[in-house]
Amino acid sequence: MKIMAKTLDIADRGVLLNRIDARNIGVVEGDRLQVMNHANDRSVTAHVDTTGSMIEVGVIGIYGHTHCALGVQDGAEVEVWEAPKPASLELIKKKMDGNPITRDETRVIVNDIVNDTLSLPELSAYVTATYINGMSMDEIEDLTVAMVETGSSLSFPTRPIVDKHSIGGVPGNKISLLIVPIIAASGLKIPKTSSRAITGAAGTADLMEVLAPVEFSAEEVQAMTDKVGGVIVWGGSTNIAPADDRIIVVEYPFKIDARGQMLASVMAKKYAVGANLVVIDIPVGRTTKIPDVAEGRKLAREFIELGERLKMRVECAITYGDAPVGHTIGPALEVKEALRVLEGDAEPQSLVQKSLSLAGVLLEMAGKAARGHGYEMAGELLSSGKALAKFRQIIEVQGGDPTVTAESVPLGKHTFVVNAPESGYVVELNNRSLVSLARLAGAPQDHGAGIELHAKPGERVDKGQPIFTIYADRAWRLKLAMEEGRRLMPVLVEGMLLDRVPSEYQFG
Amino acid sequence: MKIMAKTLDIADRGVLLNRIDARNIGVVEGDRLQVMNHANDRSVTAHVDTTGSMIEVGVIGIYGHTHCALGVQDGAEVEVWEAPKPASLELIKKKMDGNPITRDETRVIVNDIVNDTLSLPELSAYVTATYINGMSMDEIEDLTVAMVETGSSLSFPTRPIVDKHSIGGVPGNKISLLIVPIIAASGLKIPKTSSRAITGAAGTADLMEVLAPVEFSAEEVQAMTDKVGGVIVWGGSTNIAPADDRIIVVEYPFKIDARGQMLASVMAKKYAVGANLVVIDIPVGRTTKIPDVAEGRKLAREFIELGERLKMRVECAITYGDAPVGHTIGPALEVKEALRVLEGDAEPQSLVQKSLSLAGVLLEMAGKAARGHGYEMAGELLSSGKALAKFRQIIEVQGGDPTVTAESVPLGKHTFVVNAPESGYVVELNNRSLVSLARLAGAPQDHGAGIELHAKPGERVDKGQPIFTIYADRAWRLKLAMEEGRRLMPVLVEGMLLDRVPSEYQFG
Repeated sequence: MKIMAKTLDIADRGVLLNRIDARNIGVVEGDRLQVMNHANDRSVTAHVDTTGSMIEVGVIGIYGHTHCALGVQDGAEVEVWEAPKPASLELIKKKMDGNPITRDETRVIVNDIVNDTLSLPELSAYVTATYINGMSMDEIEDLTVAMVETGSSLSFPTRPIVDKHSIGGVPGNKISLLIVPIIAASGLKIPKTSSRAITGAAGTADLMEVLAPVEFSAEEVQAMTDKVGGVIVWGGSTNIAPADDRIIVVEYPFKIDARGQMLASVMAKKYAVGANLVVIDIPVGRTTKIPDVAEGRKLAREFIELGERLKMRVECAITYGDAPVGHTIGPALEVKEALRVLEGDAEPQSLVQKSLSLAGVLLEMAGKAARGHGYEMAGELLSSGKALAKFRQIIEVQGGDPTVTAESVPLGKHTFVVNAPESGYVVELNNRSLVSLARLAGAPQDHGAGIELHAKPGERVDKGQPIFTIYADRAWRLKLAMEEGRRLMPVLVEGMLLDRVPSEYQFG
Repeated sequence: MKIMAKTLDIADRGVLLNRIDARNIGVVEGDRLQVMNHANDRSVTAHVDTTGSMIEVGVIGIYGHTHCALGVQDGAEVEVWEAPKPASLELIKKKMDGNPITRDETRVIVNDIVNDTLSLPELSAYVTATYINGMSMDEIEDLTVAMVETGSSLSFPTRPIVDKHSIGGVPGNKISLLIVPIIAASGLKIPKTSSRAITGAAGTADLMEVLAPVEFSAEEVQAMTDKVGGVIVWGGSTNIAPADDRIIVVEYPFKIDARGQMLASVMAKKYAVGANLVVIDIPVGRTTKIPDVAEGRKLAREFIELGERLKMRVECAITYGDAPVGHTIGPALEVKEALRVLEGDAEPQSLVQKSLSLAGVLLEMAGKAARGHGYEMAGELLSSGKALAKFRQIIEVQGGDPTVTAESVPLGKHTFVVNAPESGYVVELNNRSLVSLARLAGAPQDHGAGIELHAKPGERVDKGQPIFTIYADRAWRLKLAMEEGRRLMPVLVEGMLLDRVPSEYQFG
């Protein structure tokens, strides 16, 4: 049936049909419709909503994401018919029943994920099934390859291409802002794609966005990397391994990160940018994804094995994940801290040491530094100002202001200082509470929002001494964070009462 | 935040916010918003879509299902805030990790299902987890009770209340149209709720709708049953065990019917109508849900055990499911066949015998007939015309025309007769192909569409003799079914070639 397309500015997937047309085509809400744009030969599968009045007969409303995929003009004609049941449903059922999935079958599933042929509930069943029944290394390799094949790739004429990835879970982990310029300053190429925060206070892409645009196509990422040696961009706009972006949506509510999905997700993104030398940062701690070092080593071996299968050299660094990296959490605060280090500050040690260690591993893997001398070389690239100069080039090539300084980065103008309720040693920083607080204050959407820590575990504080500051761009956000701050208790001082009636609890 | 409600006539769940409001509230697409209607104190959790233009700032668009739940006037003010994460997510994660769920936890999950607090992908993860990890009988009992508690119930002052259920998978299974009037004619009460076809050609509710309205509240079902002894209504409108309707939506694409979910779903509906004597029809066959008699017996024992826990007496009948019941598939065709039997026809035997057997079991359970004499008594209620008279009362009380006769039921006016391509014995009827064909012809939405079989397995047919007729209400639907009929080959005649070039294959 031919029908007139009408764009619906709704950030969703699918189409909206008048009930009369739906009945004529033979579909009801939730069914799949094949929509063909003969003007450009693009065809998509779309899920159907119906209406009695919002769309007239003879017109099909097309939601935002589906409209982008179809590339149809408002008022143009499209052809629609009831879509067949996707082949991947049988394959997902097979996985639910505990059977392994072959390489070709994995391709079918990933294709249906990328093309939105699978609905989110169907995708959720797939992810749940792989989470519960697990995936063999063959299946993980197949998934990685299928994720790469269904997206864009970079292809550099020369090697090595280096890359890094942190599996996450540690607030304040701004190390990419140091590692990428250090590596690029050494003459190596590092086309770093990164993510925005989903549950965190700031992803690397959120940080970089304080300084420059981060949304680029794969071709632009390649061209910029060729020009200045490195970039820090948002992976979501590159169309690199796009299946992963869909999978994350259904994993997110359960905070699951099925082992096989995580391995495939990370390595597909590295593989697709052409990286052949990769360092993986595995933070270990009570609030990270990996609770202890033994688990961390196991995961490391899996990353290394998957890398070997894909002809990539992988080294893993198991790092301390029980406290934030550096003293800041939130986009602008973290950027300011990283810039200070690039400008010459030797503090905070947790940030400097971690960044230099991981950069050093990459320099050694690439043969830029002798075994055991990577840290030192990374330190020289930092202290000489070469890394800062390189970072400014990266900012400029991405369209930001290369004259930026740590001093010039604006923070949230609404602040609240929390003082120590007792004298004593700081015994614990609660990562989850710190992140919740930063998010309540507006991070990551409000760039100026976040937390600055004035004391870290093991430090002595006196009663009334500032222990952290909350920053917010908007006053009501600060108020929200202040109200919750008492309940969340993100910083524990030894001897501090953990349970006492609220009116006695000294909060600021 | 207070915001003006605007109904969006879209048959979906959720709300649509202008991006500026979404940002102010602190939500993005897919997040949950709590929406409070102070006018009636109703509050719902709704998933967020965003738009730049379709909804202005200060207005919230409310999709159809959510609008019904909220009961808000267009232009009235509602209050909205970011909804907390539902407690059930942690519990579903627990089930995903293979741990059992307690009764209270099951209640939390089922509440969140019924209130739409869980998104469909989240619900899908729950159903997939119970499918893969299984459910203990304790968990199944808890789920049954929670499904009952979160919906409407009937409460009759007297016992017994009897009920029947077929677990499905057999086309043409119109037996409820005979069993309900037979049972009600015996003086017993049978408030039968039934389903519409999802993958089939006609559910019992679709059949009854040919004769009378089927959408009633639980109160109306009770009142009508009190008046005439029985009803045949659509369960979906009664708000009885509404969680099940949501669960079915996510099971449907995979054609899974997780054992625990099925047991809970069936028994919750029987329990909620107050039934204490129940017969369950378990059709066994290659294309039904239960492949062999041993599996059927196992399922029967589970139904009986669950019944005992709920203080219900359950008997199960394991029936033949490899061929359709009777000769017709599709709403009007099936109704006509059932009415003919009620009017005195002794054929088709498969329909008459199955109906009398199951009705007989119920008559014996209720003490209306002595053990071994139920079939006979059911036969008398049928042949005496008492069942027909009762059926007419049921049709009338539901608002249909009680003077209806088999003759007066209109069938699809577009027909196509398929003749035997060879002489021989009918060796197989393919249930799945028959259903597909009936659906292509327009069933169940088009009441007149379906298949009439002229020959059943074991019967001898001569070349050119009619083997089945396709009926359709609309010409293009008939054409669709005719085109697919050749490929689907729903009736196999012994000696018939199964694979030959299409131009040689004689189809009609």
